[in-house]
This record gives sequence, C-alpha cells and structure tokens, in this order.
Amino acid sequence: MKVSVGISNRHVHLTKEDLNVLFGEGFELEKLKDLNQPGQFASTSKLTIKSEKDSIVGVRVVGPTRDYTQIEISKTDAIKLGLNPPVRESGDIKGSSPITLIGPAGTLNLSEGCIIADRHIHITPKQKELYGFSNYDKVNVILPGEKGGIICNVSLKVNEESYFELHLDTDDANAHLIKSGDIATIIEGEEI
Amino acid sequence: MKVSVGISNRHVHLTKEDLNVLFGEGFELEKLKDLNQPGQFASTSKLTIKSEKDSIVGVRVVGPTRDYTQIEISKTDAIKLGLNPPVRESGDIKGSSPITLIGPAGTLNLSEGCIIADRHIHITPKQKELYGFSNYDKVNVILPGEKGGIICNVSLKVNEESYFELHLDTDDANAHLIKSGDIATIIEGEEI
Repeated sequence: MKVSVGISNRHVHLTKEDLNVLFGEGFELEKLKDLNQPGQFASTSKLTIKSEKDSIVGVRVVGPTRDYTQIEISKTDAIKLGLNPPVRESGDIKGSSPITLIGPAGTLNLSEGCIIADRHIHITPKQKELYGFSNYDKVNVILPGEKGGIICNVSLKVNEESYFELHLDTDDANAHLIKSGDIATIIEGEEI
Repeated sequence: MKVSVGISNRHVHLTKEDLNVLFGEGFELEKLKDLNQPGQFASTSKLTIKSEKDSIVGVRVVGPTRDYTQIEISKTDAIKLGLNPPVRESGDIKGSSPITLIGPAGTLNLSEGCIIADRHIHITPKQKELYGFSNYDKVNVILPGEKGGIICNVSLKVNEESYFELHLDTDDANAHLIKSGDIATIIEGEEI
C-alpha cells in the first residue's frame, strides 16, 4: 500500500493555560496554514525551547490548543540540547524530558513534555480494515531512493478524522533524503 | 554477518597545499586520536565551513593529508547551509557542491568538494570473500532498536588496510538512534 509522506519539523503543542502564560492572557493562536490532519494548523507563533546546555529559537506552535503541552524534537535537536527524550506517541509524555519554553510574555519550566515523536501513519478505522491492516498496530515501510531503506515500528494511529499520511521527523527525512509529498510503501507489520 | 558501527560527524580532508593555505606554510596536523581505519586520525585542527546562506564552525580536520580536499557533511548540515551535495564515495568529488573553508591563516573558496558520504563498510578483499560478499559491491544492513530498520545501498569499500566497520553519518545515526560501537547485521546485497 502506497502512502504519502509528511515531514514534521520540531514543534510545540500547548494547553490553553500554557499558551496564556507564554503569550499573554487571552492570546489566541493565528493560523499560518492548515496541516493535512483535519483541524490542525501551523500557527504564526514561535517559541524558544531551552535546556541547561543550549536553546533553539523559532520553534513553531501547532494549533489548536490541546489538553497537554508537548514539545516534539528530533534526536539531532536532543543532542544539541543535551537531552535524551524518549520515543513516544503524541500525548504520552509521562516521564519524558524536562524543558523550558520561553515566549514573549512568559517562561515555563516544564518537568516533562519533551519527546521524540514515533514514526506513525494517520489512518481511519475504515482504511485500516480496507487496506488489510486490521491485525497490525505497527507496520514496516519502504522509503525509496538513493539512501532508502525500510523503517520499522511505524505506528498506525487510528482516528475517524484523519488524512492517510506517514509522519516522519527531520532526522528520518534527512537520513533517507525523503521530503514531504514523497511516496512510501507499507509492506508488512507485526501482528497484534 | 555482524558488523560494528562507526558514526562520522561532519569533517574535512585536506591536501597538503590547502592545509598550508588554511593553517599557514609548514603547518603539520597534530593527532588528537587515532580512528579505527589504519593510519587515519582526528586532528586537533578545526575549520569553519561557509556557504552563501550560513556557516558551521568547529569542523574537524581528519588526517593525514590526502590528494584531494573534501568536505563531508550530513543532509541536516546541507539544509542549514542551503547546499544540495550529492551522495558520493570518498574521493569522488567531481561536480560536488561548492563551499568555502576558513582557517586561522587563510580562506579557500572551493568550486567543488562538499559531499554527503555514502553509507559504506570498510572491508579487506579477504574478508569480502570469507564473509560471502564476493558477488556484491552494495549490501543491505539491519540497524537494530526502537527506531531500527534496514538501510540499502551500503557500499563495500574494499581495501587491504582496513578495519571491518560500517560507517554512517550523523543523520543515519540519529534517525535510527544508533551510536558508535552498536552492532548491525549485513543481510544481503545487490549482485554485481
């Protein structure tokens, strides 16, 4: 099964409360552009993320606000920051890396929230059945090209409201010389 | 066949002539530490590499001097620098990306020389035969772990004087959460 690729650069999800601390009371995220996943958008707002070792400026906030604050970075970013974040599914931040967020109106010292996002494919329940993945929650995917290969442990992220797409971070993209819109091939999975 | 992994960070190889321009007439590279490949060493010398868009400081010079000057960077570095270097075997720099080298004694504006090093395995002719790879010049390799997978188009770099090792760049390492000393498995190849 063919699937298009979307590359996620480092980004931040915020709770309404944390958005207020960082950008000011009553602040609302403004849409820069829609993302492929329904309802999700790149906002015009950016933050600095900071560790004891280093910081990265201009990290984009993805909207809308969520019920958790989460910072998704690559391993390359993590090495720069001297962090060792776990590979996690979005929302699973318990025990993840501490990090500091610096916005125009305030600073948040988070005791956890920084992760490396797992490789995942957004898929609807209907597509999962239709495409023959009913028995899988993880699959392997062929990435084409000169530095191509097969990536394992790619999660199927099932949601009624989703756009069928493989999400990789910038390390996966750069290692394989893959860019958004490229086509990958799901080949097999681990049976549940 | 199991093989240990060595991760190569961005680095520079220099001709004797270019070393003199960058570090001064009569300058000799000093050994910081031996690398696993016989005769090769990380030197104490570092350079700045620069493009029209950006620069990276502290890029290490690997000794001894060679009969070509070559700058090996990752795709992540290339994006930062706004370059699009080809994936090449070491020494194959014709038509590769232009880049500027800045040393303490001088600057070199190179019209070519910047590459993304291909994934390769250092192997002796005897090992190549003994391990059953006589008919292959490229192989596929399993990288283990949470973000593991199979990487393709891994060149067998045959040399009498070589230490059996898989060389990956930092993008491959960070995408797969692999570090130097980890063990990978060569599984198959493309027949010559």
